Amino acid sequence: MTAHTNAKTPVTLLGLGAMGTALARAWLAAGHPLTVWNRTAARAEALAAEGATVAPDAAAAVAANDLVIVCLLDDASVGAALDGVDLTGKDVVDLTTTTPAQARARAASVTSRGARHLDGGIMAVPPMIGVPEAGGYVFYSGSPELFETYRHVLAVPAGTRFVGSDPGHAALHDVALLSAMYGMFAGVAHAFALIRKEDVDPVAFAPLLSEWISAMAGPHVTRTADQLKSGDYTTNVVSNLGMQTAGTPTFLSTARGQGVSPELLAPYFDLMRRRLAEGSPEEDLTGVVDLLLR
Amino acid sequence: MTAHTNAKTPVTLLGLGAMGTALARAWLAAGHPLTVWNRTAARAEALAAEGATVAPDAAAAVAANDLVIVCLLDDASVGAALDGVDLTGKDVVDLTTTTPAQARARAASVTSRGARHLDGGIMAVPPMIGVPEAGGYVFYSGSPELFETYRHVLAVPAGTRFVGSDPGHAALHDVALLSAMYGMFAGVAHAFALIRKEDVDPVAFAPLLSEWISAMAGPHVTRTADQLKSGDYTTNVVSNLGMQTAGTPTFLSTARGQGVSPELLAPYFDLMRRRLAEGSPEEDLTGVVDLLLR
Ligand SMILES: NC(=O)c1ccc[n+]([C@@H]2O[C@H](COP(=O)([O-])OP(=O)(O)OC[C@H]3O[C@@H](n4cnc5c(N)ncnc54)[C@H](OP(=O)(O)O)[C@@H]3O)[C@@H](O)[C@H]2O)c1
Ligand SMILES: NC(=O)c1ccc[n+]([C@@H]2O[C@H](COP(=O)([O-])OP(=O)(O)OC[C@H]3O[C@@H](n4cnc5c(N)ncnc54)[C@H](OP(=O)(O)O)[C@@H]3O)[C@@H](O)[C@H]2O)c1
Repeated sequence: MTAHTNAKTPVTLLGLGAMGTALARAWLAAGHPLTVWNRTAARAEALAAEGATVAPDAAAAVAANDLVIVCLLDDASVGAALDGVDLTGKDVVDLTTTTPAQARARAASVTSRGARHLDGGIMAVPPMIGVPEAGGYVFYSGSPELFETYRHVLAVPAGTRFVGSDPGHAALHDVALLSAMYGMFAGVAHAFALIRKEDVDPVAFAPLLSEWISAMAGPHVTRTADQLKSGDYTTNVVSNLGMQTAGTPTFLSTARGQGVSPELLAPYFDLMRRRLAEGSPEEDLTGVVDLLLR
Repeated sequence: MTAHTNAKTPVTLLGLGAMGTALARAWLAAGHPLTVWNRTAARAEALAAEGATVAPDAAAAVAANDLVIVCLLDDASVGAALDGVDLTGKDVVDLTTTTPAQARARAASVTSRGARHLDGGIMAVPPMIGVPEAGGYVFYSGSPELFETYRHVLAVPAGTRFVGSDPGHAALHDVALLSAMYGMFAGVAHAFALIRKEDVDPVAFAPLLSEWISAMAGPHVTRTADQLKSGDYTTNVVSNLGMQTAGTPTFLSTARGQGVSPELLAPYFDLMRRRLAEGSPEEDLTGVVDLLLR
């Protein structure tokens, strides 16, 4: 160990799945002393060879350092791993994907046991961890003091975005972005299905499709946010609800003609029609957001 | 008229709605002699003042020039406008949004009347027309000869992308990209609904959301295309079908917790589960495309 290495904040990490292992390697590569624990001990062997200290159980791993990172399958595994462990004075950062409600309950439980709590939602896949140019990052929410104390340690595996002191907000941001991504995936699946039986090369089609989605996302999202904030859904409308709803039969009829089930498109078009029946044709599509909340 | 102006290809345009008017202005601004017709004559008045020749009926407009651009509400209006008009020797470019089947039938009808036919699908809104830096463009398919003869004239209002001689393929590309966009819109609506009742500023949330969608679209679309082409859905998988399907309850439960209807997300998750039941957990999400075709 060099003096330089010893100066780095020591880290405890519970969980060596695909993500935990990537996190572990990022901290090791940056010279942080690292204590790890995994339910299935065999998964820790490679990391021991790379310089990690392997703890025999979760309690010993937690006892080793103030900063305790948790990255397990789900909130239930976090509960199981921390069961009976002394958390007094610890700084617990939970990077496990959970719902906002689970994150809030976990924060209450952990703080009641004398620890500070920060929740994280990882916006990256393992190959992006420790690779800043890959653009991955982690949403954090909960204790601002904990975040400030360790922000440089947390920034080692991926970028950091603190989104407030509500412990549920990191999970909320995480789930919201991933939900939107699955909507986009649904649209992409429908588009590829439309060309599947035609003499159209999917590889030539791909850049047209992804450029279009990327070009449309920014202006649409910005407009929607501005309209939700102002409450006026008729500002800066480019193509209004009336015109767009009138266009939907072309999309459904094309799907039918190509033998493609409309099940991924129809629910959004139904909400457009419902909003049109209640609202004004001059509005943007933003009223659909409100229909989802009833 | 200057000699310069007279050197530009004269254009006939049928239809002066929002899009037709934008197209007309782009050709006028570029110095092309322009003959226009619109069912409701009043909509042509402003353009007459800007230098367009207004024809008394569609037949006279078509008779005026070889190149005839059509931009009407839908395919039925195209049929109505061209009814009984002599098309012999004409080059008809139909920019009206239609289904692939309508475009093919229209091409057959127009060519049977002695004209060449090119179909177009406009990937732009009127404010992007005549503004090259806005990035709008038009998909074209049908007669390659017609496209080559007039490609520089067609490039005046927006970029051009010729996607083959099948007259249905421009509409197919158009509808496929717009369908994918509505999927993305659905995901965006769900994401905004999730934060709607929370103390999260939608305007601060917006750039996080749109950056994430744009960053995810390219790699996902490329991988899907490669896998569809090769037939191997297990190549270059970043997060597999098994893991992703296991994550879906967190999204649905978060929606429930936020009082948000899952109707826009659930159909895609259902298809993921169906594919997982039939395929391998090691696959990517690409198998969903095939499920849409049954
Ligand atoms: N991988 C990704 O692409 C990705 C991206 C963003 C976020 N995340 C999130 O990161 C977290 C970890 O993901 P991962 O990819 O590392 O998952 P993984 O490879 O499936 O690993 C799961 C980990 O959880 C442990 N575990 C499961 N049940 C447990 C229990 N009851 N008690 C103690 N430990 C238990 C496993 O231990 P064993 O080895 O003993 O089974 C393993 O260490 C998840 O919440 C995931 O949503 C992952
Ligand atoms: N606007 C956009 O953002 C946009 C974007 C991409 C593609 N497009 C496509 O461009 C085409 C035109 O759109 P637009 O925005 O210009 O629509 P619009 O403003 O609603 O204009 C519709 C045009 O169609 C004419 N028309 C309707 N029914 C007719 C009939 N039976 N016979 C003859 N003419 C008839 C109208 O004439 P009257 O004036 O007499 O009613 C008017 O010129 C549509 O296919 C649309 O999908 C539009």
